[in-house]
Amino acid sequence: MKQDNGIAVLSIEEVSEITVAALARAGADEVNAEAVARTVTVAERDGAASHGLFRVPGYVAALKSGKVNGAARPAVKEIAPSVIRADGDRGFAPLTHEAVAAPLADLAKRQGVAVAAVLNVAHFSALWRETGLVAEHGCVALACVSYMPMVAPAGGKAKLFGSDPVSFAWPRPDGEPMIFDQATAARAMGEVQIAAREGKALPPGVGIDADGNDTTDPNDIQKGGALLPFGGYKGSAIALMVELLAGPLIGECLGFEAAEEDNRDGGPPLGGEFILAIDPLRTRTETGRSGFAGSGGSAGEHAERLFGRMLEMEGVRLPGDGRKGRRERVAREGVKIPLALYEKIVG
Amino acid sequence: MKQDNGIAVLSIEEVSEITVAALARAGADEVNAEAVARTVTVAERDGAASHGLFRVPGYVAALKSGKVNGAARPAVKEIAPSVIRADGDRGFAPLTHEAVAAPLADLAKRQGVAVAAVLNVAHFSALWRETGLVAEHGCVALACVSYMPMVAPAGGKAKLFGSDPVSFAWPRPDGEPMIFDQATAARAMGEVQIAAREGKALPPGVGIDADGNDTTDPNDIQKGGALLPFGGYKGSAIALMVELLAGPLIGECLGFEAAEEDNRDGGPPLGGEFILAIDPLRTRTETGRSGFAGSGGSAGEHAERLFGRMLEMEGVRLPGDGRKGRRERVAREGVKIPLALYEKIVG
Repeated sequence: MKQDNGIAVLSIEEVSEITVAALARAGADEVNAEAVARTVTVAERDGAASHGLFRVPGYVAALKSGKVNGAARPAVKEIAPSVIRADGDRGFAPLTHEAVAAPLADLAKRQGVAVAAVLNVAHFSALWRETGLVAEHGCVALACVSYMPMVAPAGGKAKLFGSDPVSFAWPRPDGEPMIFDQATAARAMGEVQIAAREGKALPPGVGIDADGNDTTDPNDIQKGGALLPFGGYKGSAIALMVELLAGPLIGECLGFEAAEEDNRDGGPPLGGEFILAIDPLRTRTETGRSGFAGSGGSAGEHAERLFGRMLEMEGVRLPGDGRKGRRERVAREGVKIPLALYEKIVG
Repeated sequence: MKQDNGIAVLSIEEVSEITVAALARAGADEVNAEAVARTVTVAERDGAASHGLFRVPGYVAALKSGKVNGAARPAVKEIAPSVIRADGDRGFAPLTHEAVAAPLADLAKRQGVAVAAVLNVAHFSALWRETGLVAEHGCVALACVSYMPMVAPAGGKAKLFGSDPVSFAWPRPDGEPMIFDQATAARAMGEVQIAAREGKALPPGVGIDADGNDTTDPNDIQKGGALLPFGGYKGSAIALMVELLAGPLIGECLGFEAAEEDNRDGGPPLGGEFILAIDPLRTRTETGRSGFAGSGGSAGEHAERLFGRMLEMEGVRLPGDGRKGRRERVAREGVKIPLALYEKIVG
C-alpha cells in the first residue's frame, strides 16, 4: 500500500488480501471470504468503487451481528426440468453465484432456457458479476434483485420499491460479453449521499421529500423522502416486475419485507435473486426466417451487426464500455480509496 | 353505427364485423381475419384506440401489397425441451399468438419456464393481448418486439432502434392479470403525429431534430429527426435488450433490418417476437425461504401483498388499471372513431 495525501493506493492483489483478512477476522471461513473477495476485486479492477472495498465494512458488520452465515454452503438443486433452486444458506451472494452459474448455463444448454431461483443470500454488489459468469458459458443472462425500500412507485409519495436493479448480459463471439446493469431508481442512493456531503443539488426528477414533493436537495431525500424510479411510470413498472420476479415468483421477500426483517446492522439484508439463462444455440435454429441481411449466421454474428451500427454513430457507446476505460486507468494507477476506509478495513 | 358530428359510434360487435369484412375484401381468409378482429376488438373494448380500428387501413394495405399472407397457417413446434418455435407463415401476428399461447403455457407448466421464438409475423398492435393470453393459463409472461427504427440510442443523433415495446403479465388469483405494456421510446410516434396536427409542443427529452439537437417541435422529429428512449441511457439499454431478444436470439430481423426489407405499404413489417412464460407453481416451492411476512403462501397470494401496499398509497395505481376505467366508458358510450376512418374501413 502506498499512501498519498489521505488516499491509499493498492494493487489488485492487496484489494483481495485485505478483503479476505477482514472477513476472516469477522468470522467468515476461507471459501466464503474468498468468494466475496473475488466480487470486490472485480469491482475495483473495473473502477466500480461503490461496489468494491467501500462495501467491506458492511460485509463485516453483517457477519459480526450474526445475520449472515460466514460458513455458508450453498445447495443447488433442480426443482423442475428447467428450474434450479440455489439456497445460499444465509451467506453472502458471491459464493452462491459461483455455485449456480455453471449448472444454470448447463441446464439452459440442455433445455434452451432455464431459471435460477436464488434464495437466502445477502446481496451487496452489482449484478454484472453473475450475469457475466453465465455469459462466459455462452448463454444470454438476465438477473434482478430487489433490495430494501428507497424508491416511490410512480405517483406515490413514499418509498416502497427497492433500488431493484436489472442486469442483462449478451455473450460476444470475440471478447467480453456486452453487459448492462442498472438500478430502476433514478439515481443510486450512494450518489445522493455524495451530493449531500458535497452540498450539491440533484437534477429534478431524482427524488421527493418527506411530504412527497419534488426536491433537488439530497438531504430531503435522505430525511424521510424517497428516490423516484428512472423514466417515470415506465421505470416504475419495471421496478414492480423486479419485485415480483426476485420475490413472490421464487419464494423470497419483497423489498419492504426485507426491511421489516432486517436487523439494521449496516450490511445487506437477506433476500432472493432471479436469474434467467438462454442458450442462443437452442433458440435460433437453421430454420429461422431468411431474407433479411442478418439472417443465415449465428445469433452472435447477427448481434454484432447491431453493435457495429451503434458504434458507427457519433456519441454512442455500448453499455459497459465505460468499464473498459476505467479498468485501464486502474491497471495504470492502482486502486485508490480514502485512507480512512483502508484503515477501517485493515483494522 | 350511429353518427354524431363527424364521429361514428359503434358497438363492439360492429367493430368486429367491419374489421372482418375489410380484411376479407383485401384477401384474408376467415381464420386470419377473425384473429386480427379479436385483437382489434379487445383494443377498442379497452379504449386503446391507437391499436384498434385505427390500424385496420394498415392491415388492409399489407394484404393488398402481398407483403402479408392472408391465408397464413402458423406452425408451432418444440425445437428444444423448453423452446417453441412459432412460424407465423408471413401472416398477421394475432393468429400466431392464439396458436402459441396454450402450448407455451403448457410447456412452462411442464418445464418451469419456456420461450416462444415467434418468427415471420406482421405485428401491428400492443403486446398485452399475447402476454394476457399466456397469463390466463396461470403463467407469468414477458414479451417484446422491435418494429421499425424511430429511436436514437442514448447519446446518438439518428434513429436506429424500433419503438421496442415490452409487456409483462402477472396472473392474479381473483380476476384479471396485472399487465404492463410500454414502448422503450419516450413517446409513441402516434402521440408525436397528434401533437404535430394540433400544433402543440412536446416536453423536452422526447425527441431530436435531423441534426441531432434536442427539440420540442413534433415536426422536427417527423422530418428526419428521431424519438429518444424513455429514461435516458437506462431506457436505451432496455431497447438494446429488446432488439437482441426479438431479433438475433430467435433468428429474426433487427429493427433497422425490418426497415431495409419492408415494402413501405403502410402496414406492419415482417419480424419476430420473444415471449417468455414462467409457471410460478414450479419456481416457488414449499421449501422456499421462511421467516418473512409474505412467506408460506403461493406466489399469487404473496404478490397481492405488494399490490395492496401500492394501492394504499395516495396517487398510485397498478399498471393497466387505467384500462379498466376506459373499458367501462366504452361499455357505456360505445366505440367512437372519426367518421372518415369508419368510411375508409367499410369502403
